[in-house]
Amino acid sequence: MATIAEVARLAGVSPTTVSHALSGRRAVSEETRRRVQEVMDQLGYSPRRAAQNLATGGTRLLGLIVPDISNSFFAELAKGVEEAAIDAGYNMVLCNSAFNHDRELLYLETIRSRAVDGVVYAAGSPTTHREMADSLGSIPVVLVDEEVLGSSTCSFVSDNAEGGRLAAEHLIGLGHTDAVILSMAGLASSDDRAQGFSDAWVSHDLPQPVVIGGDFTYDGGYAALAKAVGPLHDIDFSAVFATNDLMALGAMKRLMEIGLHVPQDVSVVGFDDINIAGMTNPGLTTVRQDVWQLGFRAAEALIASIDTSCPPPAERHVQPVELIVRGTTSLCMTDAD
Amino acid sequence: MATIAEVARLAGVSPTTVSHALSGRRAVSEETRRRVQEVMDQLGYSPRRAAQNLATGGTRLLGLIVPDISNSFFAELAKGVEEAAIDAGYNMVLCNSAFNHDRELLYLETIRSRAVDGVVYAAGSPTTHREMADSLGSIPVVLVDEEVLGSSTCSFVSDNAEGGRLAAEHLIGLGHTDAVILSMAGLASSDDRAQGFSDAWVSHDLPQPVVIGGDFTYDGGYAALAKAVGPLHDIDFSAVFATNDLMALGAMKRLMEIGLHVPQDVSVVGFDDINIAGMTNPGLTTVRQDVWQLGFRAAEALIASIDTSCPPPAERHVQPVELIVRGTTSLCMTDAD
Repeated sequence: MATIAEVARLAGVSPTTVSHALSGRRAVSEETRRRVQEVMDQLGYSPRRAAQNLATGGTRLLGLIVPDISNSFFAELAKGVEEAAIDAGYNMVLCNSAFNHDRELLYLETIRSRAVDGVVYAAGSPTTHREMADSLGSIPVVLVDEEVLGSSTCSFVSDNAEGGRLAAEHLIGLGHTDAVILSMAGLASSDDRAQGFSDAWVSHDLPQPVVIGGDFTYDGGYAALAKAVGPLHDIDFSAVFATNDLMALGAMKRLMEIGLHVPQDVSVVGFDDINIAGMTNPGLTTVRQDVWQLGFRAAEALIASIDTSCPPPAERHVQPVELIVRGTTSLCMTDAD
Repeated sequence: MATIAEVARLAGVSPTTVSHALSGRRAVSEETRRRVQEVMDQLGYSPRRAAQNLATGGTRLLGLIVPDISNSFFAELAKGVEEAAIDAGYNMVLCNSAFNHDRELLYLETIRSRAVDGVVYAAGSPTTHREMADSLGSIPVVLVDEEVLGSSTCSFVSDNAEGGRLAAEHLIGLGHTDAVILSMAGLASSDDRAQGFSDAWVSHDLPQPVVIGGDFTYDGGYAALAKAVGPLHDIDFSAVFATNDLMALGAMKRLMEIGLHVPQDVSVVGFDDINIAGMTNPGLTTVRQDVWQLGFRAAEALIASIDTSCPPPAERHVQPVELIVRGTTSLCMTDAD
């Protein structure tokens, strides 16, 4: 039985590209689409047949725990997990933890009681390895996007520190010297992005960026930026790095409300490249993660573990990231102090 | 065992408001938050305890089929379904059909083979009642957002025609006389919105709006608007009504690219009020659906049916909609022909 992964290998493209060619939802060149189709024809691959390949053992259910399904970052992650699941004859139980620690633990427990065959876990609160193990028992788990404190569990993450560095180098190249970082403290991915940014910034002998706490939501970005602004709407920075796109967009909203222009007065960089990053005006400069691919690969690893009855190998898989320059960053126009 | 619905009734607010008060993710007045908390204390309600109230029969799984989870409209729908599910000790299997008819039928079939206890079904392709019945067998189903051709199945929908009418009356009040509609033909909800708009428009003796096909995505709205524009970037309309927000945002992108300003040259109205509608610049004028509530009520009805072993009553529940005026609509500045 052919899978999307095999189609991808033979066509010399990523599984993400195969999925895009199938769905037609993202631009794929005609040449690539044709090659993918040829391989599918050769292999006799059909998304429909693949899904009918149901095994008899287990519940054929995967759990997916995400902190916020209405952030399209996690919706895209869910689509990657689901595609791998369907490919292998599984369905996906979605659990939205709302960044709430209790609710996250509750979900880990109910997932065990539901007897899903395995869990893809995108942690949204600082869960410890002990808590996770206590809740899940022997159910196999693969971490995605977010690592868990004290755990060497199999994980698929983006190169978060490198993404922070790319954002910093881009802003430094535009002449910025004073930056604030909006970050969700305690969330490993956010901390790594902020650290990567800070390290690059001070390596150029620039003043340490101020870190302001935000909760990974649009409203949280709005509120965090408000804290960075003085009582007379005076600012002592010209660049903002938010560790996710939703916070960057919320910060932009606040900047515009107090009469500051993006990017003329303040440059803004986000992280994720969610689908709306290109829909705003100006479009958001951001660090792109291939999140569909993160979800797909995590689910593939989980399914391999279930099918072989071996725990997922304790490996950390790090995917590259990419800076996407749009309209929210420009040359620094403010005078140096 | 108290439920969110009971808390809402006693506090004199909607379940949506209770959820917002619990999650803190949307603005709820301090007064309301206090009242909700008091009722929860009285009833001894706890989201955690509610979820532990697991029954012994059935799989305690609800299926949710949506066409596009990365459209935050459906993400919000999923959150409503999930909240009702957790309240009653169920989990939710998410199925993203990608607006693909075959994939949707496949999901209906696999859902039966997975033995979920019931299905909340937001159709994304013109499925017939016969197809649905053949696929699902005796599994209870509640339709949401979208009705199914030839079916009197229990459904929860917004007042789509009224929403179209509200959009039209708003634009007519601003002096617009020539409009185009971007609509996904064959999708009942979209057809109803377009029809409501057209009916109101012609009732004012204005020329019948031109309907252009789009596929409910951002890229689809972009492409549809491109079709409405002449070869020299000339237009013979001053207003655009898109039957969902993603298409409205795609259309705005295209208008800006060809040098037309929103709202000075063209006013744009969307439908849904997804979370990003307020994040764009200018913010999108749109018709708001309370989609969390649609999902919550549909799941409640489904669970009641499962718990009582009676099919969901063949009733059509229609929720009111509301026009939200933001920055993409203004007085018509073009001369009448």
